Amino acid sequence: MAPTSLSRPASTRHPDSRFEQRLAQILQHATAVFYEKGYEGASMRDLSRSSGMSLAGLYYYFESKEKLLYLIHKHYFTTVAQRLTERLEEVQNPEERVRTFIFNHLDFFLANHKAMKVLSHEDDVLERELGAEIAALKRQYYHSCSDLVEALKREHSSEFNTRVAVLSLFGMMNWLYTWYNPRIDPGADELSRQVGDIFLRGIRVPAAH
Amino acid sequence: MAPTSLSRPASTRHPDSRFEQRLAQILQHATAVFYEKGYEGASMRDLSRSSGMSLAGLYYYFESKEKLLYLIHKHYFTTVAQRLTERLEEVQNPEERVRTFIFNHLDFFLANHKAMKVLSHEDDVLERELGAEIAALKRQYYHSCSDLVEALKREHSSEFNTRVAVLSLFGMMNWLYTWYNPRIDPGADELSRQVGDIFLRGIRVPAAH
Repeated sequence: MAPTSLSRPASTRHPDSRFEQRLAQILQHATAVFYEKGYEGASMRDLSRSSGMSLAGLYYYFESKEKLLYLIHKHYFTTVAQRLTERLEEVQNPEERVRTFIFNHLDFFLANHKAMKVLSHEDDVLERELGAEIAALKRQYYHSCSDLVEALKREHSSEFNTRVAVLSLFGMMNWLYTWYNPRIDPGADELSRQVGDIFLRGIRVPAAH
Repeated sequence: MAPTSLSRPASTRHPDSRFEQRLAQILQHATAVFYEKGYEGASMRDLSRSSGMSLAGLYYYFESKEKLLYLIHKHYFTTVAQRLTERLEEVQNPEERVRTFIFNHLDFFLANHKAMKVLSHEDDVLERELGAEIAALKRQYYHSCSDLVEALKREHSSEFNTRVAVLSLFGMMNWLYTWYNPRIDPGADELSRQVGDIFLRGIRVPAAH
């Protein structure tokens, strides 16, 4: 299998193939290594050791540490966005749609908390085409949230700075990797309800007519 | 001057001494290096080059990269906490006191945005005594915020999970380093008002009696 096959769009590959499963597994191991050592501190040798793939194989299929980081970003952002699309299909109410976004994001990243840190910390490592492609995925994901918030804003005839509100919401959700403790903090369901309460009450601003 | 003098408590040193100024300057340069290269990626040689201090001098006064990172944490957390104490002296109203916390935090970290990233990213590098001391400073700072939120909660007879609310607020504020763009986003005054609006409306939950 040639390295380029890794970058074919998800839709052209069979999602349940053994290859896909093995790829997801390798990316999960790589995420754990970047989580522990940071991107700079991790070597291809560390990545090979943790994934159980030979160093030669790792270079053959993934080319470089940067390419692995790129695939991690792509894998997690594509997956969380796909789940969101599926979940939103059943929800009509604008407020419930924002709550669905929050639940989908927290549910996914609490289950993948190492990824949450790696995606946050190694945000500016990728350069050129790889960096541009991931930036586009993230922009798309940001807009899927801001579209939902804009719809709610119209419904309520509210007035607020959407960019500040949406990025504050991402802050509430993404900062979790620094403090969330499953032994004392609520699970994804209850936590999304609480974060959703703060955010939704917080933006319910009647417009000055 | 012996290296140990660096860790004397702030109160026993004259805050305007030339030494203090030079120290703050070196820590600022070191912050910029850690911001650019990450803690793992930065060398003592990089730090020496950027601060204009000889490598031998850097090792003599600061001992290690870890000690420098420790001093950066200590410097920024002590300074932001001192400013908060001063500002709170003039404010009585519980809601205004929470707004003062938000403004003080944003005002300080927007002016020191490289520190915001370094303090967030290199949170788990420090170990043993140094790590414990910084963890205590951060805990104290967290509690200065949660005390203000608790006071407001009592005044409003609200019911919410204080820990989730306060850490969501820190998320809104600290995530800023990933997105804030001074050319298009509001300044510290207006931004604290907007973040304060979302948060304060968000936690205004009447208790179920």
